[in-house]
Amino acid sequence: MRSSTESDGRGRAVIDTVSPQIEGGRFAIKRTVGEEVVVHADVFCDGHDVLRCVLLFGREGATEWAEAPMRHLGNDRWTASFVVGELGRWGYTVVAWVDRFFTWRHDLARRTDPKDIAVATQVGAELVREAAARAAGGARTRLAEFGEALRTASEPDAAKRIGADEELGQLMARHGERLFPTRYDRTLPVVVDPERARFGAWYEMFPRSCAADGATHGTFADCEKRLPYVAEMGFDVLYLPPVHPIGTTYRKGPNNALVAGPDDPGSPWAIGAPEGGHTALHRELGTLADFRRLVRAAREHGIEVAMDIAFQCSPDHPWVQEHPAWFRWRPDGTVQYAENPPKKYQDIYPFDFETDEWLALWQELKGVFLYWIDQGVRIFRVDNPHTKPFPMWEWLIREVKRDHPGTMFLAEAFTRPKIMHRLAKLGYTQSYTYFAWRNTKRELVEYFTELSQSESREYFRPNVWPNTPDILTEFLQYGGRPAFMLRVALAATLSASYGIYGPAFELLEYVARDPGSEEYLDSEKYQIRAWDLDRPDSLRDYIARLNRIRKENPALQSDWSLRFHGVDNDALICFSKSSEDLSNVILVVANLDPHHVQSGWVELPLDRFDLDGDRPYQVHDLLSDARYLWHGARNFVRLEPHAVPVHVLRLRRKVRTERDFDYFL
Amino acid sequence: MRSSTESDGRGRAVIDTVSPQIEGGRFAIKRTVGEEVVVHADVFCDGHDVLRCVLLFGREGATEWAEAPMRHLGNDRWTASFVVGELGRWGYTVVAWVDRFFTWRHDLARRTDPKDIAVATQVGAELVREAAARAAGGARTRLAEFGEALRTASEPDAAKRIGADEELGQLMARHGERLFPTRYDRTLPVVVDPERARFGAWYEMFPRSCAADGATHGTFADCEKRLPYVAEMGFDVLYLPPVHPIGTTYRKGPNNALVAGPDDPGSPWAIGAPEGGHTALHRELGTLADFRRLVRAAREHGIEVAMDIAFQCSPDHPWVQEHPAWFRWRPDGTVQYAENPPKKYQDIYPFDFETDEWLALWQELKGVFLYWIDQGVRIFRVDNPHTKPFPMWEWLIREVKRDHPGTMFLAEAFTRPKIMHRLAKLGYTQSYTYFAWRNTKRELVEYFTELSQSESREYFRPNVWPNTPDILTEFLQYGGRPAFMLRVALAATLSASYGIYGPAFELLEYVARDPGSEEYLDSEKYQIRAWDLDRPDSLRDYIARLNRIRKENPALQSDWSLRFHGVDNDALICFSKSSEDLSNVILVVANLDPHHVQSGWVELPLDRFDLDGDRPYQVHDLLSDARYLWHGARNFVRLEPHAVPVHVLRLRRKVRTERDFDYFL
Repeated sequence: MRSSTESDGRGRAVIDTVSPQIEGGRFAIKRTVGEEVVVHADVFCDGHDVLRCVLLFGREGATEWAEAPMRHLGNDRWTASFVVGELGRWGYTVVAWVDRFFTWRHDLARRTDPKDIAVATQVGAELVREAAARAAGGARTRLAEFGEALRTASEPDAAKRIGADEELGQLMARHGERLFPTRYDRTLPVVVDPERARFGAWYEMFPRSCAADGATHGTFADCEKRLPYVAEMGFDVLYLPPVHPIGTTYRKGPNNALVAGPDDPGSPWAIGAPEGGHTALHRELGTLADFRRLVRAAREHGIEVAMDIAFQCSPDHPWVQEHPAWFRWRPDGTVQYAENPPKKYQDIYPFDFETDEWLALWQELKGVFLYWIDQGVRIFRVDNPHTKPFPMWEWLIREVKRDHPGTMFLAEAFTRPKIMHRLAKLGYTQSYTYFAWRNTKRELVEYFTELSQSESREYFRPNVWPNTPDILTEFLQYGGRPAFMLRVALAATLSASYGIYGPAFELLEYVARDPGSEEYLDSEKYQIRAWDLDRPDSLRDYIARLNRIRKENPALQSDWSLRFHGVDNDALICFSKSSEDLSNVILVVANLDPHHVQSGWVELPLDRFDLDGDRPYQVHDLLSDARYLWHGARNFVRLEPHAVPVHVLRLRRKVRTERDFDYFL
Repeated sequence: MRSSTESDGRGRAVIDTVSPQIEGGRFAIKRTVGEEVVVHADVFCDGHDVLRCVLLFGREGATEWAEAPMRHLGNDRWTASFVVGELGRWGYTVVAWVDRFFTWRHDLARRTDPKDIAVATQVGAELVREAAARAAGGARTRLAEFGEALRTASEPDAAKRIGADEELGQLMARHGERLFPTRYDRTLPVVVDPERARFGAWYEMFPRSCAADGATHGTFADCEKRLPYVAEMGFDVLYLPPVHPIGTTYRKGPNNALVAGPDDPGSPWAIGAPEGGHTALHRELGTLADFRRLVRAAREHGIEVAMDIAFQCSPDHPWVQEHPAWFRWRPDGTVQYAENPPKKYQDIYPFDFETDEWLALWQELKGVFLYWIDQGVRIFRVDNPHTKPFPMWEWLIREVKRDHPGTMFLAEAFTRPKIMHRLAKLGYTQSYTYFAWRNTKRELVEYFTELSQSESREYFRPNVWPNTPDILTEFLQYGGRPAFMLRVALAATLSASYGIYGPAFELLEYVARDPGSEEYLDSEKYQIRAWDLDRPDSLRDYIARLNRIRKENPALQSDWSLRFHGVDNDALICFSKSSEDLSNVILVVANLDPHHVQSGWVELPLDRFDLDGDRPYQVHDLLSDARYLWHGARNFVRLEPHAVPVHVLRLRRKVRTERDFDYFL
């Protein structure tokens, strides 16, 4: 404990329980550029004196911070907010002090004895004179005038009137002395990320399956040609699995076969071959120039390319020869390959992060990110971050973002909850979630309430995926087209950040490798696939519509407004998102049963949407363009899964114009 | 943020969310000697390796701390506990590491490939050999033997058997290397107080009203004669209002009259006269020797004398002359007296804690406590601590307790909740509460659930009082004798620490000074009162019985086990307290209506008390000695307020002996 006698013990204000804060300021809260940080604090002092309290905030390392006066909410809770206008690390803290002038003014108003008032008036006159001495220009003049007026006030009512003067109050708020201020003992950090960290639709695609003929090995140039397709669907991020040279030792064949044929391309996650490792490109995909051109071309379509970073090596990776100390060697002279006994991954060597050369290894891995940032990449999806040390990530992400604050890191960790939260706390910009396995109403309500309403929302930004190359859920395997339509609509509306692995998704790929497995049959992880993008049953137009709705409706571009509403049928789920001013309210009703028509009564909290229970309102289905006139809190809904299993309704308020006819806003 | 590269980045264990902790360890949790601290922590590491985790604990400043292995509860939550055996400040923290041996052993058991097992066995042999080198004596020999056995194990099953050997596991738990341990970044403090901090019955009494004749000014010698009376009622603490010289300037007369008559004794809280201040005694009470004898005599009755410390001065206090800088002077040359406009307290000067001489003032005030500690006092009730700076209390209490860890401080702060909590956090041993104003079932359930079940119980120890010299509640004014019986029984059973202001309480003093006021008419604060302690309607025997029940039943000696149970009548309240092993379970049912008979059905959670729903059990009323045979969860209760408005029931389990007849434990 810091002894108070070391500082000035006259600081009588106490500042306690400042929020938001993550583990006492050990970790930062997260915002995107332009968002607000609403700060609360318990602030009080001994006795009955009047406190003043300001929020201090600014860029980390800035010499001077801005301040905002805090407002008392009652029960000793104060609040103020600020907007984070730039990328990078910010901070905030609270300062409070017992204000002599405002205490004096408060007491003066309640004094009744004329003699007492006369003495008190002189005390106040002195406070105002002191403030005048500190002020300059017009303020100095006015304060001097107020001081003199108090000094010479001839009768109690006149003194009280001057004391209560509003201009005097404003002048004293600026120029009164901040005597013995208390500063909260921590400065709380904020990481400010680009807007894409809050809102974006991701599309994962294997470059090698992009060749126009559907047979030869696709290239970056082929990916470029695929950009209009991706852009027309409305995606913001194009995420590519690893694009590095693939090892040949223990290369896996189709469907994870232990032995590969001579023409099998292997898994892109078995990174490294004699020609290079994590900073090299797979020859058949193209050159570095081709890659850079793809990144630029994507950006012209409004799309960021996201790279996959998987920190593991094929036995053929140059690092295995160059840095043998980065791997663990067994007594038989072999390198310890990745395993989770009895499972073995002979085609992958993990790093030994307990090596004596750990710092060199950390530096090299950081260098991988910096290398690709130099090539124009701003977004990284990190493979299995939870199998690498947490302290390394905390250091690495902070180091990278110091010079490149717009960089985003998506943690691909489908693991235990506390591990996923730690990765988010220590710096990951976004996190994968359990969404793929949350299918019932109860599961969805519970999980998304936690994600959007609990304290973890300050640091854990969900990015939800109905499928990935590793995850073909049972629900998609057996639910047919309605299941795909439902799951992508839920992802796109429940979460401002979501993604799909395509074209497998829009082409309704549903066959698993084995019963009970979530692996795709003939997975692109191990072979090149040809996709007929123009198949009439493709969901591309439906997905394009969903993404357009997301772009046109601010309510869907963030998550904290999410609320679930009652439906008297467990197969139907209903939720809303709204902009703060309620100018944009989106209501989603979905049929969670991909097999049967379901219907029920939806119950809305009219107050929350500022709706008048006595007047009808319109709900406009942005997917089907149908419009329904609803009345009151309870309204009937019926959803046919084989048509469209979801309503995405924009709530339109009925207003009466001056000329006495109605229209819907 | 501490950069991980500054330490060794190879520490892969993560320790998060250690509990209990108050504001990140800024404040201590509280325990009494012999109590347990149950610690939980989230502990995990990257990957699939096996963690070990220990709780470190000990006296603050001790060179070596003890450790206890932590146990995994699932979901990455670990736990261990320790007992605080001595007064003073303790600390605890958590250390965890990835354990190579136990990881190896876990993996070995799952390996299947004989060649793989052979290599793994050699890895394990090396770990065991290294441990042998670190061990000594018999452990070294056994480890060397195990190492050799592994090295020479000829076939997979033999190797697996040795690897899984229990003795080897125990030896390796002690001698295996703790490689790259992570220590939680904070050490969390515990303040350990005497048992009286958790459990005690207090009796407040004005010494000057203790004269046997009921007319003259009582003395410490008179107080001594009153000790058997207080001891027979079963009280543990005798709390005396200030015993210092009383000022004469602006002395208050009876019933707070602005002008005192020549014989009026004044308020004991107007401290200080020419003969002395906070370290002097009021002449008419006796000498320092008398006071010391009273403290000793009380202790012989098992009673601690608690002193009142009120940091304020009458205008006649020597400090006003000696340390004018400790007071605030007005422009008219007078000292600023205590006020909360338009209320004035001309008989009291507050200190100006914003004085330049604040540190000398702090030191002097600390000296007051040390002076009385030297006279044998161990318990202080501090008057209005919330009108003195919080940083001073934090410093002062810590300073005093450093050398006198058995000292107790009771905060007399009836103010806003966050202020009361801050005083408790910064070091007050116990706190007054809002109990006096909580009368309905809903209020009582809500408030005592908060006190006994929320996180604040780690630092906020309630001491509940149905009355004080300042508080004669409306409920007591109008509820008659049943109200007094009810309120003291609730206080004595809801809270392990409680007190009454007597003899006003046991003599049913109920007349207020004015309608709507909580002040006593003819309050002892301003005049000497004569009390007829032998009045037949006195509650002394009833209170004695309550205190005896408290002493005989461990369940009532702490608060955390408190649980409320359902009754289908809002005028009846039901709650239980129990010892951890359920050998002592007390069930209280009270009629909150002092005017009418009330009855209803009580509903008990039989599981909680390990009761068999099919067998009857006995509830034994410890107040009336009546016994009732109850069956199942729902039982009928009827309480007549004018007889006894409360059941204090000991739950007695029916057991069957070997000889096949039943009795109640």
